[in-house]
Amino acid sequence: MSDHLAMGPGREFDAVRALLAQWGPLARGVGDDGAVLDVPAGEKLVVSTDSTVEDVHFRREWLSADEIGWRATQAALSDLAAMGAAPLGVLLALTVPRAWREELPALASGIGAAMQQVGAAIVGGDVTDGDRLALAITVLGHAPRPLSRAGARRGDTLYVTGSLGGPGAALSAWLAGSTPDAAARARFARPEARIAAGLWLAQQGATAALDLSDGLAGDVAHLAAASGVACVLELDAIPCVPGASVDAALQSGEEYELLVAAPSLDTAAFAQAHGGLELTAIGRVEAVGTPPSGGAPSGSVQGSAAQPGVVRAERGGAPVALPGAHDHFAP
Amino acid sequence: MSDHLAMGPGREFDAVRALLAQWGPLARGVGDDGAVLDVPAGEKLVVSTDSTVEDVHFRREWLSADEIGWRATQAALSDLAAMGAAPLGVLLALTVPRAWREELPALASGIGAAMQQVGAAIVGGDVTDGDRLALAITVLGHAPRPLSRAGARRGDTLYVTGSLGGPGAALSAWLAGSTPDAAARARFARPEARIAAGLWLAQQGATAALDLSDGLAGDVAHLAAASGVACVLELDAIPCVPGASVDAALQSGEEYELLVAAPSLDTAAFAQAHGGLELTAIGRVEAVGTPPSGGAPSGSVQGSAAQPGVVRAERGGAPVALPGAHDHFAP
Repeated sequence: MSDHLAMGPGREFDAVRALLAQWGPLARGVGDDGAVLDVPAGEKLVVSTDSTVEDVHFRREWLSADEIGWRATQAALSDLAAMGAAPLGVLLALTVPRAWREELPALASGIGAAMQQVGAAIVGGDVTDGDRLALAITVLGHAPRPLSRAGARRGDTLYVTGSLGGPGAALSAWLAGSTPDAAARARFARPEARIAAGLWLAQQGATAALDLSDGLAGDVAHLAAASGVACVLELDAIPCVPGASVDAALQSGEEYELLVAAPSLDTAAFAQAHGGLELTAIGRVEAVGTPPSGGAPSGSVQGSAAQPGVVRAERGGAPVALPGAHDHFAP
Repeated sequence: MSDHLAMGPGREFDAVRALLAQWGPLARGVGDDGAVLDVPAGEKLVVSTDSTVEDVHFRREWLSADEIGWRATQAALSDLAAMGAAPLGVLLALTVPRAWREELPALASGIGAAMQQVGAAIVGGDVTDGDRLALAITVLGHAPRPLSRAGARRGDTLYVTGSLGGPGAALSAWLAGSTPDAAARARFARPEARIAAGLWLAQQGATAALDLSDGLAGDVAHLAAASGVACVLELDAIPCVPGASVDAALQSGEEYELLVAAPSLDTAAFAQAHGGLELTAIGRVEAVGTPPSGGAPSGSVQGSAAQPGVVRAERGGAPVALPGAHDHFAP
């Protein structure tokens, strides 16, 4: 852990020492100004930073400190999963208000459990005082050929891992003042970065991927725009958690499932390789400007050939409006 | 920039877009879940995270937003300098309270200027809301043979770059309610990570290095402890900024100068290669247990052979007490 703690070092040094003692061999390379890591020869370094902040990304009464640590770490690692990268390590910048100080061991326990799950180490970070709990987590990974959002090609199939709608349902319940059901709550509180899935998908020829942190509707638009293609979603195929509608699944963010484009994937082999986690074909990639099958009904969302990044929806092969999306034809 | 902004994306997305527009080509690889970088073949990856937080590391009335951005970035980069690493890029996790939002372009300008100075790119990050301005900066670098604190050997000379005492003088003035003189203030507000110096020193055979973020007295103790050696400081040799005493220079933290151990270095060649920046021999490395020259006077600070990491002070070759250090012989 770095030690730039100019104006009040005592408390923060103590906090860092306690964390290092708790993490044991999970924290490595700590003591010098920086940590030293090896990127395997011929591979690329993949990096991302992701912050989880109290009252922005969660409220204290929703989650235990252990869950907050786990979730923040998995959310950050999810960016590596989306790039088809294997984790090298993480760096943590923790802002810990006085009111959270007693919860620091529980927070560290959640962070440590997440790191242990993916088999990577905590290689640096710092702890500072502040008014709101915040975890800024930088993840480092490596990949021979990192996936981007920009590689999807006409003719690819669109796939999604897992089932969608859980985090959205939990969030809706909390924001309405009620209690989410246990399954939805677990999807929000205990996400798992799809690291192994991302590695498998990259190896099997995926052309583009991203995680569903903004929700499927938003993220498929990101993929379409980055790749300059039209993405056609078959709404009836979208895998939803029990009780979640397709509309809700499309809007549910913080999913940490992967959206992937690939020529063709063996979904049964995927499930077998990932403990039953499902990979579901939910649509296809077309060239921008391809006319919708059956003609567009009034109210459908589509772009023109001049506007890359189009998302269209179908039900049973017939074009329908994309729920919740901006409607160019609305009055 | 990553885009996990679950509960209030609009403002933060806008902030990220504005930052990217301002930074232009200084921000690279942004758009995917992670950025992709190359570590040169045969070299190590060096990483560190460093946070600068309002009211912990600075007060708003002390610095302009541009200076805060510059200083936080240089402070983070300083860890690469201390490791003898060349910068690859940085990731920024910015917490920007409402009261700071109008200052974001100035903050970004300082960050950008610092990145431009070292010729590295901003490769990721995020912006979140919060109650206190905080910049958590992760730096990535590469080095064929990173320097550590642990490599100092008996017979090495101790060197320091630049002159010490400026940041401490500025801080003392501010904390006493007065105005620091311009030179001391500049040393606090406009530090420069000694990147080129670190590379030169590593190449010239330095055995250990660290930056003086805790001040020379504290950091020489870190070096001695990590290397398991005795460090002997010649107090009269310590380069001080005008007006700073040796005692003040020893305690002044946030210096971002480098403390280096090396068999022997050409200080004139160093100065010539670094625009006149001085490299000054300030002491030597001995085995733990070496008797002090001339015998220890009452009040000197020393350890026993069983306790590694000893710091001793001399004036004109005669042992003296190390100012400000814990005195084992005090009543």
